[in-house]
Formats: sequence, structure tokens, C-alpha cells
Amino acid sequence: MTKARLYLYDTTLRDGQQSAGVQFSVPEKIAIAEALDAIGIDYIEGGWPGANPTDSDFFEARPKTCATFTAFGMTKRAGRSAENDEVLAGVMNARTPAVCLVGKTHDYHVTAALGITLDENLENIRASVAHMVAQGREALFDAEHFFDGYKANPDYALACCRAAFEAGARWIVLCDTNGGTLPGEIARIVAEVIAAGLPGDHLGIHTHDDTGNAVAGSLAAIEAGVRQVQGTLNGLGERCGNANLISLIPTLLLKEPFASQLETGISHDNLAQITKLSRKLDDILNRVPLRSAPYVGASAFTHKAGLHASAILKNPDTYEHIDPAIVGNSRLIPMSNQAGQSNLRARLEGMGIEVPRDTPALARILDQIKEREDQGYAYDGAQASFELLARRELGLLPDFFEVKRYKVTVERRKNRYDQMVSISEAVVVVKVGGQKMLSVSESMEEAGHDRGPVNALSKALGKDLGPYQAYIDDMKLVDFRVRITQGGVEAVTRVIIDSEDGTGRRWSTVGVSPNIVDASFEALLDAMQWKLVRDGAQPA
Amino acid sequence: MTKARLYLYDTTLRDGQQSAGVQFSVPEKIAIAEALDAIGIDYIEGGWPGANPTDSDFFEARPKTCATFTAFGMTKRAGRSAENDEVLAGVMNARTPAVCLVGKTHDYHVTAALGITLDENLENIRASVAHMVAQGREALFDAEHFFDGYKANPDYALACCRAAFEAGARWIVLCDTNGGTLPGEIARIVAEVIAAGLPGDHLGIHTHDDTGNAVAGSLAAIEAGVRQVQGTLNGLGERCGNANLISLIPTLLLKEPFASQLETGISHDNLAQITKLSRKLDDILNRVPLRSAPYVGASAFTHKAGLHASAILKNPDTYEHIDPAIVGNSRLIPMSNQAGQSNLRARLEGMGIEVPRDTPALARILDQIKEREDQGYAYDGAQASFELLARRELGLLPDFFEVKRYKVTVERRKNRYDQMVSISEAVVVVKVGGQKMLSVSESMEEAGHDRGPVNALSKALGKDLGPYQAYIDDMKLVDFRVRITQGGVEAVTRVIIDSEDGTGRRWSTVGVSPNIVDASFEALLDAMQWKLVRDGAQPA
Repeated sequence: MTKARLYLYDTTLRDGQQSAGVQFSVPEKIAIAEALDAIGIDYIEGGWPGANPTDSDFFEARPKTCATFTAFGMTKRAGRSAENDEVLAGVMNARTPAVCLVGKTHDYHVTAALGITLDENLENIRASVAHMVAQGREALFDAEHFFDGYKANPDYALACCRAAFEAGARWIVLCDTNGGTLPGEIARIVAEVIAAGLPGDHLGIHTHDDTGNAVAGSLAAIEAGVRQVQGTLNGLGERCGNANLISLIPTLLLKEPFASQLETGISHDNLAQITKLSRKLDDILNRVPLRSAPYVGASAFTHKAGLHASAILKNPDTYEHIDPAIVGNSRLIPMSNQAGQSNLRARLEGMGIEVPRDTPALARILDQIKEREDQGYAYDGAQASFELLARRELGLLPDFFEVKRYKVTVERRKNRYDQMVSISEAVVVVKVGGQKMLSVSESMEEAGHDRGPVNALSKALGKDLGPYQAYIDDMKLVDFRVRITQGGVEAVTRVIIDSEDGTGRRWSTVGVSPNIVDASFEALLDAMQWKLVRDGAQPA
Repeated sequence: MTKARLYLYDTTLRDGQQSAGVQFSVPEKIAIAEALDAIGIDYIEGGWPGANPTDSDFFEARPKTCATFTAFGMTKRAGRSAENDEVLAGVMNARTPAVCLVGKTHDYHVTAALGITLDENLENIRASVAHMVAQGREALFDAEHFFDGYKANPDYALACCRAAFEAGARWIVLCDTNGGTLPGEIARIVAEVIAAGLPGDHLGIHTHDDTGNAVAGSLAAIEAGVRQVQGTLNGLGERCGNANLISLIPTLLLKEPFASQLETGISHDNLAQITKLSRKLDDILNRVPLRSAPYVGASAFTHKAGLHASAILKNPDTYEHIDPAIVGNSRLIPMSNQAGQSNLRARLEGMGIEVPRDTPALARILDQIKEREDQGYAYDGAQASFELLARRELGLLPDFFEVKRYKVTVERRKNRYDQMVSISEAVVVVKVGGQKMLSVSESMEEAGHDRGPVNALSKALGKDLGPYQAYIDDMKLVDFRVRITQGGVEAVTRVIIDSEDGTGRRWSTVGVSPNIVDASFEALLDAMQWKLVRDGAQPA
């Protein structure tokens, strides 16, 4: 049997940006688009060009993708031609191969919200789609409020979809805009739409999670015959979010009746990257990944119950619906020391450190990690700090240098032109091979480059490390993430620093303290030590 | 038409406790049980008496409830009688009116995991249930791995359920233990079970969220005829969690086909308490409530898109599937660069600032927000800074004081006991009504409370503000969030600070700068000014 093609449409960059507190920058949008393309998404909706400066800039800067880049916009207003509608022009000017236009299909919204006649709305849909098609664009029509509209006036809702289809729209996307339609009803209405003559391979589904059923509603529509599904990474989106593609994709590839009947653009090799993709978005958003997320969460394959954990050790499929490796995730059995040690050995081996089974230091490393994670450290996102901790216990970490003391000052005051400026200054005293070194650095806002105390410390520390200087000259601090977290009974600051060197290699380190400067300094020190170890520096 | 009764069964205290990182104390279990009872849950599963000391203690201390208190346990082992099985005895000794026993129904698990014959397992189920019933208990049977078992060997899975039913079990609960069964398949199998002679009003459903379909799977089973649904508050539970009762309850009470066909123990008055109930659990767990949670999340009725926000103002039901008040939640229209003038006026009105339509300052405020969001500010999460920005443009912000300069130092060095310690010191110079004030503060790690430069600045600034002192004395910094973001072409630091005062009021402010200390200071200043404005301080 040949499989039918199901198209995946991502709207993280448009509808996803409607999440409270989410505001992507242009570089962030580029990074997300590249990640979506790498995994094999068919369509990437980049934003609404013309609606805000970031989206317009992004379309100028957008990366080359295999995925079909799509600009979002609105059907033209009544009383002007499609050619003269400046909102449509803004969308057109983004020069994307595809364009998705949202339009009303609920009679009440047409008359009450737009204040135009039902026929005027039909004409707006027809003319807007026809205009896009005439310009050589692949046109999609987002049928806003389709399900509520269909329940109120099925003939009119269908007429809107037909107008778009007959004007040449490649896809008619049935949107449950308010998120209130349950999967059973979605299935029934989609079946009726197809029975009314709109072909399933021209229909898409767009759901929201207001009742916690966005994924199920999408699956119900696909089973009923639609061949495009819209969603976002990690279910980002307005209110409760859109359908979560990160949950949908594994189900579509692995579970029946989908796996054997449908084909997507995502290979099984790429499916194994989906956990990373999910974490990448959280990283960009500086969010703590949801531990309980289906398929990709840190707890998705964690077996806490004694009953389950011991059965899992005998036979994993007793309490796992899929093998976690298929989605790039891994099994975790918190209470099993045995599993902990073999995990640890595998992790160290990945860093080039071979440790024989039952080496006593393994248990000490596990204990230390547990203790430090209780204090607020997080080693998942700071592999280099984890490696240093393990090397210390294994006796594989040379004593390169010792920091005797440091002092950092930030001052904000008027300069000689009567402008408020900031100056950061750092002094670091380091002992290297018996010799004391004193370094100072200063940075000023006047000169346009005061980056604050952490940067000043980093510069001072990197300024004179004597014999190690050659190793650290090409290091730079590329990212810096701060979170308040629980450390024992008190709130502490956790700082994660990403460093990069001249070869483009990147590594992450962690520091924890109630004092943000101390936490940063600890992460900085780890970053330098890791570089010295990895580059084979010999202690002075 | 008389409605059929649907029973709600909560297992937060048992299966919910299988979540990674969750370990309830006895007083916490009592508080949760009382909250469940108050809202009208039918059954409260309290834990597994005998399996761990907390659960045993809890059953001793359990509160009196209208809900049926239920103890969880396992069917007896082979080779002994129900009377002589000490696991069953532990469950019995909890003296609850109801008892829920889990047992195997998947042939493979019986032979591979238990290592007994299929007939022995049937007898264990029969004898255990019969024993409970003979002791006057209401018996429930949790059919473990039922859906996988049914797919492998339907006759045997059904035989297990029948054995429990014929032995007198009030409920046979069909469990999707591994969470891998999709709603469509659940619906089909439940229909077949009922067709095979097990009555729907003796069947329950127990799902897990491993594919993100736990809620949908429960709804599918209810539509197919089961009359008991098991779940947890906020979807707590092993791996990805159980079916979320907080999402299910509003759907069952408000949406078709459920609302008109089924009756639960939850009144509409109690439904309005469900947002509080959800937050209460997060409070006990010390978790940040999930903003995007269906029905009860802070974002569930947040309208960010300009298009949606303006329509909502005309008519709320255009973009809301239900009235948020029904579930005790509320509507929020945050500021962001996608919002329009009407949105802005509504927001200001909510802050007690009435601005006539077309006031020129409105456009200036929107422009400023747009410009500052491009620089890296985020007003979604910093309502107080937004209010100050608007007041400034509207001429409604008095000049309370001016910061002339500040200086903050962090030093890390050895103390007299040769321990490394940190000391943070801040000096702030402020001009209030023509008078210059100089404040200094210091905090030391030795004394166990060095919280770093931001805290030192906050303390110095709050130390002497002359005539304003009384207004700010009860302010404290309760949270602090930092992220690196794009500000124009450069990376900048965005700091969001949450403050609280003696009345328990909380507000959030934002600061942006390449220098983290400057960004923090800006947010601190906003926090103080907002408090002065709101409390009606008069400029000196």
C-alpha cells in the first residue's frame, strides 16, 4: 500500500510568538527556522510581515530552507482591491514561496466584528487568494473560527472554504481558533466537510489547547482525512498554546493507524533528534524544560515506583510504550544505583574517559552530583562542569592555578559631558606555580562596551594567566543564563555560561551562589579549567 | 431526560505521588484530601497503606470526608489465601470504606513478570475481591495494562475483568498503564468490552499522558460508556502524568455531549473554585503554576494578538470558548508590540487610569513600547513598568527623586579564619526635593546573607529616601529573573524583578542594559516608583 503524504506546518514563529512573555529576536527566529528545517518540517510560517518591525526584518534575513517558507497575513479589507490593500502588499513583499491568509468563516464574526456583508467577505477571500496565486505564490487559507462557524451556519462556513479553494488555494486550514471544540466533534465536522466535496488532501487542521485536547483534536482530524497539520514546538502559542508538534510527530511516525497509512517529511533518524529540538526551544526561551512532556520530557521514561522500576530492569517494554532512544530520550531509574553507575560510565566514555566497572570513585561522583543538585547545580546543561567534577574525583584534574581573591566594582555616574555612564572594573589575584599575578580590567559604557561585572571579571581573569595564556587567548563568553532556583532551604542564583574558542568549539559550565557575581565567577573558572584540560595544558 | 451519574476518582495522593520529585508529607496529604472533598470529588485514593510509613500514617490521620476514602493495594500473591496475604492485610487495616486492588490482565505480564499460570492469576483476582467484599468494603479492580492486554489476548483480559466483577467488584477500572494507547483505540476497545457484557456503569478509565492524550483518552472512554474516571490534580503522576482532572472537570460540566448527558458530584458553584484548587496544589509542591494550563492557567484567557485583543473588547466570546469566571479565572490583555490603542485603553482602565479615545499620548505610548521592546524590554511580564511608562507620557508621574550616582562592589577574599567569603557593598546618592542623600549598605557571606550586588543596591536605595521612607519600608524583592536577549544589534541583559509589600501585593518591573547591575537597578527604581504612585505619595 502506498502511504498518503501528511504535511507538517510549523507556526512557532507566528502563532507561537503569541504566547505570553515570548518575543523572539531576529537571530532567535533564524535559529528556530534552521532547526525546524533540519528535522524535516514541510512548512515554516515565519511571522506576519508588516505587522511589526521584527517580523519584517526576519523575512529580509531568513535562512535558505528546504521547507517552504510561508508569510502570514489577512484577507483584504472590503472596499478596496487586493492590489491596493497595504496589508496584503506587506505580506507579498516578504517574497516567500507560500502565503497563508486568515479570513473569517463564522457568519456572526463577519457581520459583528468586520461589519460587512456575508457576500463581501466571500469576495474578500476569493480576491485575496486569487491575487496571491496570480503572483505565483502557493496560497493557504486559514479558515478562522471554522468549527464554531460550521456549527452556527454550515453552508456559509463551507462557502468560505469553497471560495478559497476555487480561487486556487492549495490548502484550506480548518482552525479551531478559540480552542473549545472537542476531538469527537472535530472528527465529525471534518468528515462532513470532505463529504461536502472539499478534498482531504487540500485540508489542514489548526487546533488550540484550551481544553487540553489540541493534540487529540489534530489526530482526530487526520484520521478523518485532513492531510496537513499545523502546530508549534513545545505547544507554544496564544492562551493555552497550539497543538504540540513535538508530541504529534512521534505519535504520527510510531503509532497506528497513522504509522502505516501516512508518510511525513521526517525520517526516523531525524525523529531521534526531537528531544534535542524541544530542549533547544526552551534554551532560546530560557525556560526550564517541562519534565513531564510526552516523549521528550526528562521524566517521560523515569520509573519511580518500585514495582515498575524492578520490572523495567527485567524487561523495558513492561512499563514503556516505546523505546526512549527512538525519540532521543533516555530511561531514568532514580533509585537504582546500578543503573546510575552504568549510565555514568557511558557518559564519561563519551568524554574520552574510560573507567572500569566498580571503580570506587563512581559512587563518590554520583553522591556528589546528588548533593550538588540539591544545592541548585544542574549538570544536564553544563557538561564541562560535570566533566571537571568527575575528573577531580578520578584524580584526573591537574592543579592549574588558584584564585586568591577578586574584587569587582560597578559605578554609574555622570561623565564630563554630563551624561550618565557606567564603568565596571575588576581586579583578580591568581597564584600560578608559586607566583602571584594581579590583573585588572576596566570597561566603560562611554566607549560603548561596558558589559558589566561578569565581563569585567572574565577579562581580568583572562588577561594574565602566565604560562596558560596561550590556551585561553581565543576564549570568549558567548551566552550567559541566570535562574533563581532552590538550593537547600534557600533561594540561590544559578548561572550557566557558554564559552567558545577559536576553533568554534562550545562548552557550558555552571556556578551556584546566593551572590550572582560569585556564581558567575565559579562558572567562568570552570570554563577556563575545562579548556586547559581539554587542550592538554601542563600545570606550572 | 435524567442524566447518568459519572463518578470522579482522584489518585493525586497515590499515583500523583509517583511524579519525579514529589513526596507528600502527612499534613500535605490531609490538606489535599480536604480540598478534593470540598470541591465534590467522589473517591479519594489516599495511598498504599503498608507500602511506606507516610501512607500508613496518613490513613491513621485522614480527615472525615463526604468523598469515599479509598486505600490502594495489590491482588493477593499465588500460593496463599487472601486472608493470609500480608499486603492485602495492610490495605484492609487502613479501614477505608473502599479498596482499590490492582491486578494483571495482560497474559504476557502474568507469565513473564509474575511467573504464575493464567488461571492462578484469575483466582488471585477473584479471591482478593471476594475477600474485600466479604469484609464489607466497596471493591474496585484496577485492570493493569488492560488495553495492551486486550490487544494481545482479548479473551483473557476480559476474563480477568469478569472474575473481579463476578466476585463483587463495584468498579472495573480499565487502565492504560504504559500510556501508549490513543483515544480512538480506547473508544473502540471500551465499546467492545461493554458489548461483551461488562456494564458501562461498572467500568472506569485510568489513562496516562505519554502521548499527550490522557484527557482525550478519558473523554473517549466516557463517550463510549464508562461511568468512572480516574485522574489527578494538575495531571501529576508517574512519567508524563495521569489524566488531569483539573482539565477534565470543566469539560465534563460545560461541553457537549457530556454536559447534557452526565451528572457529576461537582456543582457549578464549586467549579468556580477549580482555579484555586489547581494553584493550591502547586503551592504545596512549591511549583510555579503552568501559565498555559487549560482553563486555570494565568495565560488561559490572555489575549496578546492585536487582532484578538480588539475583538475581545467588543465581544468576549469572539476569542474565548468559555467565560473565565465560570472556572474562577480571569481575562488578561497584556501589553506587547502587537497590541493596539483599544487594547491599551482597556489595560489602563484596569489600572484606574481613564483615557479618552484618540488622546495623542496613546500613540506615543504605543510607539515607546514598540521601540523599547526592540531594545529588549518586555512589558508582558512587567505590568508595573508598563504603567510607569504610560503615566510618564500622560503626565501622571510625579518626580519623586533623582539618582545622582551609585557604586557597588563585590569582593571575594579570605576572612580571618582563612575561609573564602564574599562581601557586597553599595553606595547610592539620591536627590530628594533639593536635598542630597547618601546611603550605604553592606552584606557579608560570613553572616550567611550576602545576596550579591542587586540586593546590596536594593538595601542601600531603600535605606534612606527621606519623606518616602514610610512607603517603601515594607517592600521586599521576592523574585529576580535574568536573560540575555537581543537589544537592537547587540546582546543585552533583561532583568525582571518581582516585589512584594506588607499587604501581600506583588508587582513586576523590568530593566535592560548590557550591564546586569544597571539593568537590575533600573528595575529596582521602577519598583519603588510604582509603589510611591500607587500608595499616593506626594513629591517632596
